[in-house]
Amino acid sequence: MAAVNATTPKATLASVAEIAGVSIPTVSKVLNGRDDVAASTRDRVLEVMRSLNYRSPTTRRRTELVMIDVVVENVTTAYYSEVMDGILECTAENGAEVVLSAMSLQASSAAQRAQRMLDAGRRGLLLVTSKWGRSDLVTFQERGLPVVLVDPINPPGADVVSVGATNWAGGKTATEHLLDLGHRRIAHLGGPPLAECSQDRQHGYVAALLGRGIEVRPEYVISRDFTRSFGIEGLSQLLELPEPPTAIFAANDTIAIGVWEEARRRGLQLPADLSIVGFDGTSFAEATMPQLTTVEQPLREIGRSAARALLRQIDGQEPDSTRVELATRLLVRESTAPPR
Amino acid sequence: MAAVNATTPKATLASVAEIAGVSIPTVSKVLNGRDDVAASTRDRVLEVMRSLNYRSPTTRRRTELVMIDVVVENVTTAYYSEVMDGILECTAENGAEVVLSAMSLQASSAAQRAQRMLDAGRRGLLLVTSKWGRSDLVTFQERGLPVVLVDPINPPGADVVSVGATNWAGGKTATEHLLDLGHRRIAHLGGPPLAECSQDRQHGYVAALLGRGIEVRPEYVISRDFTRSFGIEGLSQLLELPEPPTAIFAANDTIAIGVWEEARRRGLQLPADLSIVGFDGTSFAEATMPQLTTVEQPLREIGRSAARALLRQIDGQEPDSTRVELATRLLVRESTAPPR
Repeated sequence: MAAVNATTPKATLASVAEIAGVSIPTVSKVLNGRDDVAASTRDRVLEVMRSLNYRSPTTRRRTELVMIDVVVENVTTAYYSEVMDGILECTAENGAEVVLSAMSLQASSAAQRAQRMLDAGRRGLLLVTSKWGRSDLVTFQERGLPVVLVDPINPPGADVVSVGATNWAGGKTATEHLLDLGHRRIAHLGGPPLAECSQDRQHGYVAALLGRGIEVRPEYVISRDFTRSFGIEGLSQLLELPEPPTAIFAANDTIAIGVWEEARRRGLQLPADLSIVGFDGTSFAEATMPQLTTVEQPLREIGRSAARALLRQIDGQEPDSTRVELATRLLVRESTAPPR
Repeated sequence: MAAVNATTPKATLASVAEIAGVSIPTVSKVLNGRDDVAASTRDRVLEVMRSLNYRSPTTRRRTELVMIDVVVENVTTAYYSEVMDGILECTAENGAEVVLSAMSLQASSAAQRAQRMLDAGRRGLLLVTSKWGRSDLVTFQERGLPVVLVDPINPPGADVVSVGATNWAGGKTATEHLLDLGHRRIAHLGGPPLAECSQDRQHGYVAALLGRGIEVRPEYVISRDFTRSFGIEGLSQLLELPEPPTAIFAANDTIAIGVWEEARRRGLQLPADLSIVGFDGTSFAEATMPQLTTVEQPLREIGRSAARALLRQIDGQEPDSTRVELATRLLVRESTAPPR
């Protein structure tokens, strides 16, 4: 909620900086949503801003709250929850409000929704779903409603802003970690074959192997979907090979959890008999399988960036870039070790 | 999104019933949100309604969409996700829209928020958080904004509608399942001691034991919080007892997962050495620990009921009851067995 009327007039950049124990330029960076501030510093600065009820001059100038629509594919995934957390954080900081709906429940067409948004004075659309195609997106844009996509399955075209993670680099890092441990027989269980993020992670895997002069064995690469059952079945298939892999890079944590379960069920010693790397690093995966080595996607940051990009466009600013990719980070935990 | 203009005039109760293969009264029950319809039937009927773009006469009469505010404690929990799924389902069916925000990011007071809601034409408030106290709730109600609470930590008073699960009955059922398997040394790891839902589950545990003439041992009952780390530490504490329990009823699935991890780490054979029952039954817990026997809360139904109760009040109808408790259900899976 915006609290424009409740702004404490004395809260300034300087007072925020002093209380947070940082420089004024750092506060300014946080305000402008720059990414070159440590997360812990950013959180501290934001907390001080909230406690002082600080509002930037830009925010103060606004006379009414901006409302945006957020449409998600499905609210019951950890991926969505983390992205949404970032979206709500950014919109709350900027005095904007979010109208949330789930794609699966939408009966209306893009044109109907756009009309409804205009009637209700809403200003832009943030999509965490890939169900609407190019012509639907144009429907919104033509009516003056900017659109931003989070991690679309396929690239939307140069005139729509999208935000995602560095999937290729993440896949390469995951595979290089296994190579560094001494593995040479590394398999990959991939997500939906047509999804761009799956393809990018797989290309990263291939690049890492080729970079070390290691042949990519077709029988080591299986792509299907982001499910636990695929992890279970994929591992079973790989273990039937004459020369089974000693390590697996799974394209998300859910697949990795399935692999881990099936490996335990078969009596394999983990990680000595099999190393596993996942992808996503959601807090939920961490809570339920804290030992999983994984490539963390900055999902909260992705949500923040997407919301920020949308609010900028609503403010009439040009987007910095139509495609933003935020860096992934390898979290080395206990599911990887040198091969026996 | 409402699609009032796009209503197909020919879609009637009768055509929905025919296509769904059910009676007209059944369709009517689904429309009125009655709970005495099987979930699979309800889903089929709703799917047909959506495909026919059916709108009930009540909905058709509405000239504009109702917007409600939903405030959640934290979007990154499985509990929230499932409740939200039900809220979005019910609001979408009724042509209402949801403005979502997270309690932790709110800078404004209840009075400021109420004013903002009135200014923006919003009609009611659904709280999935217990942070606002009684006087805050009155602030909304006095301004003509009805409030509904989902599973509040403490009862809000007779004039505020709240929706939750039958925590006492669920705790009793979980414990009776362990008794039926032959366990007599049954411990309980409880949630926050001051939370009503924790207390109710614990009272259910006590009632089950006393009902079979079994003494409640104080050293077998530890309450702290709903975390995995409490599961780990709680089990460690119980195993140090001269006579450790053979079974544990954990007050939620997250605690149960911690217990399970720690038991595996100590080399216990599960479930032969230790039976574990959880509570919640979220799809996340199922995806990551599918073998956990648990008491399923109907979280989606709780979300639906809460949204329905709010929309009824907005429509000027009296609530059926100020406290709605939906039945829990024991899901017997693989983490429970007779004691050795």
